Amino acid sequence: MKIKLKDIAKMANVSETTVSLVLNNRPSRISVAKKEEIKALAKKYHYRPNVSARGLASKKTNMIGLVIPDIENYFFSQLAKNIDYLLRKHGCYLILTISDDSQDNEFQLIDQLVNIGVDGLLITLSNESYKDKERTIDKLNELSVPFVLMDRNLPEIECKQVYYDNVLGGYMATKMLLDAGHRNIGFIKASSDIENANDRWLGYKKAMEEHHISIEPSWVATGNYRIDGGYDAGKTLLTNKDLTAVAIANDMMALGFIKRMKEKNLSIPQDVSIVGYDYSKIIEAMVMPLSSIVQDSSKLASEAIELLFDKQTRSSERRILTPEKFEGESVRNI
Amino acid sequence: MKIKLKDIAKMANVSETTVSLVLNNRPSRISVAKKEEIKALAKKYHYRPNVSARGLASKKTNMIGLVIPDIENYFFSQLAKNIDYLLRKHGCYLILTISDDSQDNEFQLIDQLVNIGVDGLLITLSNESYKDKERTIDKLNELSVPFVLMDRNLPEIECKQVYYDNVLGGYMATKMLLDAGHRNIGFIKASSDIENANDRWLGYKKAMEEHHISIEPSWVATGNYRIDGGYDAGKTLLTNKDLTAVAIANDMMALGFIKRMKEKNLSIPQDVSIVGYDYSKIIEAMVMPLSSIVQDSSKLASEAIELLFDKQTRSSERRILTPEKFEGESVRNI
Repeated sequence: MKIKLKDIAKMANVSETTVSLVLNNRPSRISVAKKEEIKALAKKYHYRPNVSARGLASKKTNMIGLVIPDIENYFFSQLAKNIDYLLRKHGCYLILTISDDSQDNEFQLIDQLVNIGVDGLLITLSNESYKDKERTIDKLNELSVPFVLMDRNLPEIECKQVYYDNVLGGYMATKMLLDAGHRNIGFIKASSDIENANDRWLGYKKAMEEHHISIEPSWVATGNYRIDGGYDAGKTLLTNKDLTAVAIANDMMALGFIKRMKEKNLSIPQDVSIVGYDYSKIIEAMVMPLSSIVQDSSKLASEAIELLFDKQTRSSERRILTPEKFEGESVRNI
Repeated sequence: MKIKLKDIAKMANVSETTVSLVLNNRPSRISVAKKEEIKALAKKYHYRPNVSARGLASKKTNMIGLVIPDIENYFFSQLAKNIDYLLRKHGCYLILTISDDSQDNEFQLIDQLVNIGVDGLLITLSNESYKDKERTIDKLNELSVPFVLMDRNLPEIECKQVYYDNVLGGYMATKMLLDAGHRNIGFIKASSDIENANDRWLGYKKAMEEHHISIEPSWVATGNYRIDGGYDAGKTLLTNKDLTAVAIANDMMALGFIKRMKEKNLSIPQDVSIVGYDYSKIIEAMVMPLSSIVQDSSKLASEAIELLFDKQTRSSERRILTPEKFEGESVRNI
C-alpha cells in the first residue's frame, strides 16, 4: 500500500502541512529533530509526493485573479483578452471577475479570489473606490497575495502600478488640433472621480495654456463616458458657433457626439474637427478613421503581468506608459 | 470524544461523501439497507454534522463558473455582464474564464473551476468543441457539477441547454427583405462548425425556398464572423449587379460589408438593402439604425441561471428562445 502524506503526519504527530513543508524544504517552525524524523519516515516508507500534496506547500495554483469594473467596455474586454492570452503562455489560468464599478463588490471579489487560492491579483479599481480612498488603501495594504493596479492609478498608495499617462494623452489630443491651426477647441470631459478622467482634462488645459488660449466655460461639457454622454454634450457644445474643434475624453462619447453632429447635418472635419481617446477599430470601419489617442491594451497587459511575476521589481514600482497618437481623417487644417 | 463523519464512513465501509449525502437526505446510489445502516450509526453515536461536513453534500460556495469563447465579442461581453448582474442578485459570485475557442483550454478551465469548488457551470462551447464532438460529449457527461450550455447548442447531448432559434432568426432576416419586395437576396454566412452559424444559413434557404427563388451560387459568400470577413465578402458579392439586398449572419460582418459599400460609393438602402444579426447599439449610433435580428442577452442570461438553479427542471431541458426583429432604416421597399 502506498504511504500517504497524512500517514506520515500521524506517525510524526504533526499536521499534513508541516510534513509537506518539511519534505519540500520550505521554512516551518518545528525543531530540527522533528524535521529529521519526518524525512526519515518518508525515506523509510518510500514516500513519493503527489502533485496536490506538493501544492500544499508551494501554494502554486497557477490561477491569477482579475478584477475589472465593466466587461461591456471595449477597452476592458480587450485588456482581459490580452491578459488571458499572455497568462496562458505562462501556464496560468485567468479567473476574471467584474466589480460593476462598486467598491463592495470589488472587496468581496478580492476576498473570494484570495480564498480560492489565486497566486496573484490584477486589479482595475472601481469608480467607487476613488470616492472612499481610505477604505481602498486599507484593503489593498492588508492583501496577502501579490497584486498590481492596472490602468486606473491611485497616487496615495505604495504598490505596483501600471497605467498610461493620461495628462500626456489629453495634452497630445489637444496638440493635434492646435498643430492643425485650431484655437477655439472644446473639450468633453468625463464625470468621474477616477484620476484618469481628470488627468486628460489637465492635459487639455496644459496644452491650451501653452498656447495662451483662455478656455471659455461654454467650450467645456461633461459626460458619463458612454455614447449618450457624448450625445448630450454635443447638444450644448454645438451651439457655440465659434468652436472649430473638440477633443473628447473617450471614443464612446465621441460616438455620441458624432451622432449629434449628423442630426445637425454637420460634417467631420469640414464643420468640426474631432480627436477621440481609446482608438476603436469599429469607428474606423463604420464612420471614418477618427484621430485619437491610442492606449495599447496588450502593452498594458504585458507590463502588468511582468510586474506581478517578476520578484526583482520593487514592491512600489510604478510604470507609466506613453500613449500614442493615431492621425486619422477627422482633423482639418485651418 | 465527538464522532466524526469519517468514523461513520469507516464503520459503514462507505465514502465520507456517501455518508454526507445520506445524512443530508440527498440522492445517492447505495441501497436502502445501507442508507438505514448509516442513519442508525449516526443516531447511535449522536453524530452532529459540522458546517464543513454539511458543505460536502450541499457544496455551496456561491461561486458559479462561466466559460465563454471570446470576451472581445460584444455579444459575449454583454452576456457576461448580464450573468454577473443576475448572479449577484442571487448572492452568488461569477467566476469568468475564456477558452479562446480552444477545446483544450475549455477542458482545462472546466477542470479548474470544478477544482476550486464552483456550485455550477455555465458554458458556451468553443468552436473547436464542435470539431471533436465526441470528446466534448464525454467531457460534459462526466462533469460532477450541474451545468447549462448557453447560446451554442449541441444537439447530440442530453443536458440543460438554452439558446436562440437560429433557423428562425435566419428565416426572419431574409423574410424582412422578401416582404419589402426583394427577390435577388444575397447571404453572408459564417465559416464555422457551430450549429448556430449553419442554422442561420438554413433559415435563409428556407425563406428563399418558400418564395420559390433559386439561390445563385454567386449570391452567397462566407466570412469569419469578424469585420474583415464582411469586408472581404463584400468584394465578391458586390460585383453582382442583380443583387438588391443582402442578409448577413452577424453584425460584425455587416460592419465590414458597409465599409466595402462606402468604398464603392454605394448607399444603404438606396443601392443595397441590408439586414444584420445581433443588433448593436454602436452601429445605430454611428451609421444608421440597421435592421437586424435581436438576441436579447439578458433573456439568455436569466433563462440559463434559472435552468441552473431550479432543481425542478429536467436534467435534459432545452429552452429555445425566439429572436426578435428590429426594423431599422437599412431596408428599402421595392
